[in-house]
Amino acid sequence: MGRGLAKVILEKEEYLKETVGFSPKIVAAADIDGVAADEEGLDVEELLNTAEETGTVANYPEKGEEGTVGIDVIKNVESDMVVELTPTSIEDGEPGLTHIKEAMNRGMHVVTSNKGPLVLAFQELEDLAEESGVELRYSATVGGAVPVLGLAQKQLSGDRISEIRGVLNGTTNYILTRMAEEGAPFDVVLREAQELGIAEKDPTLDIEGIDTASKMTILTNALLDRNVKLDDVDVEGITRIGPELLRLAQDTGYEVRLVGVANSDKLEVSPRLVPSGNPLVVEGSLNSVTLETDLAREITITGFGAGPRETSSAILGDMVDVYKSTEG
Amino acid sequence: MGRGLAKVILEKEEYLKETVGFSPKIVAAADIDGVAADEEGLDVEELLNTAEETGTVANYPEKGEEGTVGIDVIKNVESDMVVELTPTSIEDGEPGLTHIKEAMNRGMHVVTSNKGPLVLAFQELEDLAEESGVELRYSATVGGAVPVLGLAQKQLSGDRISEIRGVLNGTTNYILTRMAEEGAPFDVVLREAQELGIAEKDPTLDIEGIDTASKMTILTNALLDRNVKLDDVDVEGITRIGPELLRLAQDTGYEVRLVGVANSDKLEVSPRLVPSGNPLVVEGSLNSVTLETDLAREITITGFGAGPRETSSAILGDMVDVYKSTEG
Repeated sequence: MGRGLAKVILEKEEYLKETVGFSPKIVAAADIDGVAADEEGLDVEELLNTAEETGTVANYPEKGEEGTVGIDVIKNVESDMVVELTPTSIEDGEPGLTHIKEAMNRGMHVVTSNKGPLVLAFQELEDLAEESGVELRYSATVGGAVPVLGLAQKQLSGDRISEIRGVLNGTTNYILTRMAEEGAPFDVVLREAQELGIAEKDPTLDIEGIDTASKMTILTNALLDRNVKLDDVDVEGITRIGPELLRLAQDTGYEVRLVGVANSDKLEVSPRLVPSGNPLVVEGSLNSVTLETDLAREITITGFGAGPRETSSAILGDMVDVYKSTEG
Repeated sequence: MGRGLAKVILEKEEYLKETVGFSPKIVAAADIDGVAADEEGLDVEELLNTAEETGTVANYPEKGEEGTVGIDVIKNVESDMVVELTPTSIEDGEPGLTHIKEAMNRGMHVVTSNKGPLVLAFQELEDLAEESGVELRYSATVGGAVPVLGLAQKQLSGDRISEIRGVLNGTTNYILTRMAEEGAPFDVVLREAQELGIAEKDPTLDIEGIDTASKMTILTNALLDRNVKLDDVDVEGITRIGPELLRLAQDTGYEVRLVGVANSDKLEVSPRLVPSGNPLVVEGSLNSVTLETDLAREITITGFGAGPRETSSAILGDMVDVYKSTEG
């Protein structure tokens, strides 16, 4: 993820400088093996090459250091913004949770793609951001490149959102689409998805609905003014869905999708029948979110839910947005 | 349209004050018969009642005046913002064009739902807004409640948009959907739509693709950094589409939609075959726009393209946005 972002920052350097005046100086980078840090600014191309050729930024010429880790960088390097891209743990949110808290405590803005800290401690982190006078952005945690958070928070100022319905997991969506197309049983399609690298070796979080539930937790906290945690979601996955059911549904004008639904008193994830023409019925790795509001009635936004470039769209968007709202 | 907006402003008074601190004072209102103006602020409920009961705001107690028209108000009343909601004329853009220019010349921000001025003089109006140091917003001109302009301009700062594809006309969409469902010929379905009030008595602008072309003109100017006018669009409507074609398309996994396509060298509106699972395939009066970008790849936004409440979502959103970006 970090490398994907670095590539995009390199590629977009001129464009961002011209269009929004945003020209970030990368003062540190950390991965699991070590860090590279230079308050004068690292050379992003060199950083990327070092990581790709040697497997870690710790080998960055002169300024690299093995053994030191992310939290050391956050504690010791002066910076305006921390971009937290460590993998999600829904058990304890670490190491992201500690990273984000420390960064905000030190007065740094945070942009993150890590769902863990947000599904466990959303309110705490929002409060800390406010107390510390910093921005906390997490567009990439929900739906990859689908800018549903920004859309809802910035573009619908006159509208009040009453319900969120989301198809937010590419793996389950792929499995459901393929099962319907091929009439093949769940296990076979899952194995195919694993061979293609679409499903993970341990696909539990996806097929049991936990990933969708995590995203719904974040959307619910952010857009419905509720204070919920991952445990509050009623979750049912797709492991009991078979091709016969999918065919029967299609014959009557429906598709089956793993849908998250949240409103003022509901928060659940389950396989649902969605009418074929409904904008929530997306295929393969697309994600889709419908917001029900009092004026616009229904707005649906659809896009790619994963992929390093697509997710970089969300992260970079957040970075620019923090820049604009604090420097502008 | 004005009444729809007045209702929504009344309904949202408390909500907007609490959430964004926006508490607009309406100092004038004009319709085809006359005006009501009071620099101390009009009572919106009274204004709405007067218009609904007597047919014109000119009968507003004490402050109403028959015969005076919109341009007089714009010339004579001090205000921060003009909301221009007169009907679209694609011939000369009037009276909207004169209203908008005069308002901006006098230093007032403009929010409009009128496509005419923008399809004829987009660049001129953008330049005038910049020279006059005012904001010009026109979300409601494209896709009703679908916030595609704000999404593209505000939420995708890191992305570069390379192509726009839009299904932007509810009337043609309704006709195509019904023709496919019923197997009935074009004329029959058009008449049905007219009886239901979905198609206008003179449906030319819709079924010949001119309305879609107008919206594509605005999107192209706003999002692709091109300088185009309505005349630059290659337009073909849906009048030659029959139910046989629609059925044949469906049998092979496609739907027919009237699609506008714009990129750096193309600008056209025509009936196209769209794969059934594509997010552009929306039904009835829904509108849908796909933005192709370099990072997110494809983002589609779908919502209701018309209706007074839905359009008020866009207008009110623009009003709040102007307020926030100028007062905030």
